[in-house]
Amino acid sequence: MGVEIERKFLVANDGWRPAGTGAMLRQGYLSSQPERVVRVRIEDGQGTLTIKGLNRGATRSEWEYPIPPADAAAMLDALCERPLIEKTRYRIRHEGMVWEVDEFHGENAGLIVAEIELEREDQPFARPPWLGEEVTHDPRYYNASLLQHPFRRW
Amino acid sequence: MGVEIERKFLVANDGWRPAGTGAMLRQGYLSSQPERVVRVRIEDGQGTLTIKGLNRGATRSEWEYPIPPADAAAMLDALCERPLIEKTRYRIRHEGMVWEVDEFHGENAGLIVAEIELEREDQPFARPPWLGEEVTHDPRYYNASLLQHPFRRW
Repeated sequence: MGVEIERKFLVANDGWRPAGTGAMLRQGYLSSQPERVVRVRIEDGQGTLTIKGLNRGATRSEWEYPIPPADAAAMLDALCERPLIEKTRYRIRHEGMVWEVDEFHGENAGLIVAEIELEREDQPFARPPWLGEEVTHDPRYYNASLLQHPFRRW
Repeated sequence: MGVEIERKFLVANDGWRPAGTGAMLRQGYLSSQPERVVRVRIEDGQGTLTIKGLNRGATRSEWEYPIPPADAAAMLDALCERPLIEKTRYRIRHEGMVWEVDEFHGENAGLIVAEIELEREDQPFARPPWLGEEVTHDPRYYNASLLQHPFRRW
């Protein structure tokens, strides 16, 4: 694969919350070193292995491969660093763009983050009324750092 | 995938060396922690991503996924820990079994290791006349340890 450009925000209020339910997402890390992140994820019964290099601006090398959910479950249970990250993911349309809003559980309960994927770093987009502060460049909000420094202990 | 059972030996002499050439193999690690090894490999133009858990005896959890060779090359060049491991792999038949003999280059030049994959830990097999000391349980010979402590510096 190529390169991923995404921007990450907090939410300012509960206006984003849809009527329906989100997807349960369970993920862990085989490496949480920022230079070579290796993530295992199960979302809605689908397993994924993701490899990411270092950020340069909002741009990041990323490769993603589907894997059998039984493989992903065995890696999460037996191999991944502790703790695992569990969150509910909501996909929310706003003026033609899709926002992924993640509501964290467990050690990171209370944290809600909204992400948008872009094709260019300077691509304009409409800000939903519930959008809060941008945290794209704040390393505390990387999922890999939320392992060592969970939100509830900030 | 499941579980891999293999036994690893040194070679006692040059009797294993075939007339033909072997396959050039280049590999690196996204994680070299023994609890969660993530290996990237290119062999004969085919990319592979391999995930391994801890050894229990000669048995090890292992999952292997083919990936595009361009992905593997980008990960080896930009993401993997240094140094990379380069070796020539020969596949040698002996009484119905296939031995993989790896001749290392670079920092590990001089090291030659023969491996056999088995279905059970106690499965009998015929020892080729060139087979040397068994090193299955010697952690110095794990490919991941050959990164930090290459053979030429032993």
